Amino acid sequence: MTFSVFVPPHAPGVRLPVVWYLSGLTCTYANVTDKGEFRQACAELGLIFVAPDTSPRGEGVADDPEGAYDFGLGAGFYINAVQEPFAKHYQMRDYIESELPDIIATSFPADMARQGITGHSMGGHGALTISLRNPARFKSVSAFAPIASPLNCSWGHKALGGYLGPDESVWREYDACALIEDGARLPALLVDQGDADNFLIEQLKPELLETACAKANIPLTLRMQPGYDHSYYFISTFMADHLRWHAERLT
Amino acid sequence: MTFSVFVPPHAPGVRLPVVWYLSGLTCTYANVTDKGEFRQACAELGLIFVAPDTSPRGEGVADDPEGAYDFGLGAGFYINAVQEPFAKHYQMRDYIESELPDIIATSFPADMARQGITGHSMGGHGALTISLRNPARFKSVSAFAPIASPLNCSWGHKALGGYLGPDESVWREYDACALIEDGARLPALLVDQGDADNFLIEQLKPELLETACAKANIPLTLRMQPGYDHSYYFISTFMADHLRWHAERLT
Repeated sequence: MTFSVFVPPHAPGVRLPVVWYLSGLTCTYANVTDKGEFRQACAELGLIFVAPDTSPRGEGVADDPEGAYDFGLGAGFYINAVQEPFAKHYQMRDYIESELPDIIATSFPADMARQGITGHSMGGHGALTISLRNPARFKSVSAFAPIASPLNCSWGHKALGGYLGPDESVWREYDACALIEDGARLPALLVDQGDADNFLIEQLKPELLETACAKANIPLTLRMQPGYDHSYYFISTFMADHLRWHAERLT
Repeated sequence: MTFSVFVPPHAPGVRLPVVWYLSGLTCTYANVTDKGEFRQACAELGLIFVAPDTSPRGEGVADDPEGAYDFGLGAGFYINAVQEPFAKHYQMRDYIESELPDIIATSFPADMARQGITGHSMGGHGALTISLRNPARFKSVSAFAPIASPLNCSWGHKALGGYLGPDESVWREYDACALIEDGARLPALLVDQGDADNFLIEQLKPELLETACAKANIPLTLRMQPGYDHSYYFISTFMADHLRWHAERLT
């Protein structure tokens, strides 16, 4: 597993807050590392930025039989799979919740008491569900064009069905809106969404998140950004805003 | 030929200064467009940013017979070739000096009386030589890790020999240091160079540019940046500095 970490300039011995960025379908750690435009803001704000991969990689790792972009390699959905042949390697929930944090804590000057999380699309789904399940770990949460409810879109049905099997009741811990309905809570939440995003209506459905947050009294700042699509041009434009959001809550 | 143009938000009818960015070996318009981190600064400073390709493209365009990265496709060196089979398409000097400016002037809200130019590596060589030959056109010039003197490095010998033939006297109009020695002048010049750049000693040789500028009383700001290599992480780190340098002279 390859990940990237940006550590800003800092005084010796200082431990810095950490922002996790979970990437979307088809991405590796490299997309946001190359195109995310986070370094200047992280340097100014004193944030460590961690960018994991989106699925297990390597020889012997199962993929979608037809090599689809939305399942298998590049599409782990931050789930612990139980269906074979995926269960053997697709344990992305454990990777983000336990394995990689242990590496970050021991190998970098990270203050693990001050963590925030964000992500894009499938990674926005990951950021929301992981923070909803681990409220003590994350002091700040945001997302770029997240998949609001895998239970209610075709990407989600394919992935959760494929990794978890057909019983939709066990999907709920991987659905931000269902987690909120079932009682999980978030601190204040910032979401940016382009209104020219090709996936907005069929897959992302921010209105479901808006409804769930409203019912649960979770303060959601949902910003519909006119003219923006689903690309890294959208993400990089608003990246510094998100990092400031996290820094305000972590520093 | 594909190029990218970033036009910042502006009032109707306003015409904006233009900064040209010429890319290095192997690149297309896309590398800096994706990874250059220029949009925020261009938006704040009110600069149009133009990123051309580095060679002709398409069916029937000659390439290095062995597909080398430093000659042929992706390696036009901003030269008008005279050697066949390259002369037919490799007219990159005309493309940057005439054809593309005509398109920019007529298709975008550009004030062609206020142009600056920069570039990276082979594109730094392009920015320097094009501005030295066209001093009335460019009010501001900078470069990232430029090839200072193709006459004095193996990249330059291969390219200028291949495109122009063996007579080195005709190479001089494509060599920044030779142009300065022969009387061409630049306004104040900003150059950033990483001191951990793999190509620094054998290919880039900023000391030759330093000597040429000193003899010609050209005010050169050469910043050796500790630890930086030849990559877009280097370029993106200092991009906003360069855009401010151009804006101070164009706005």
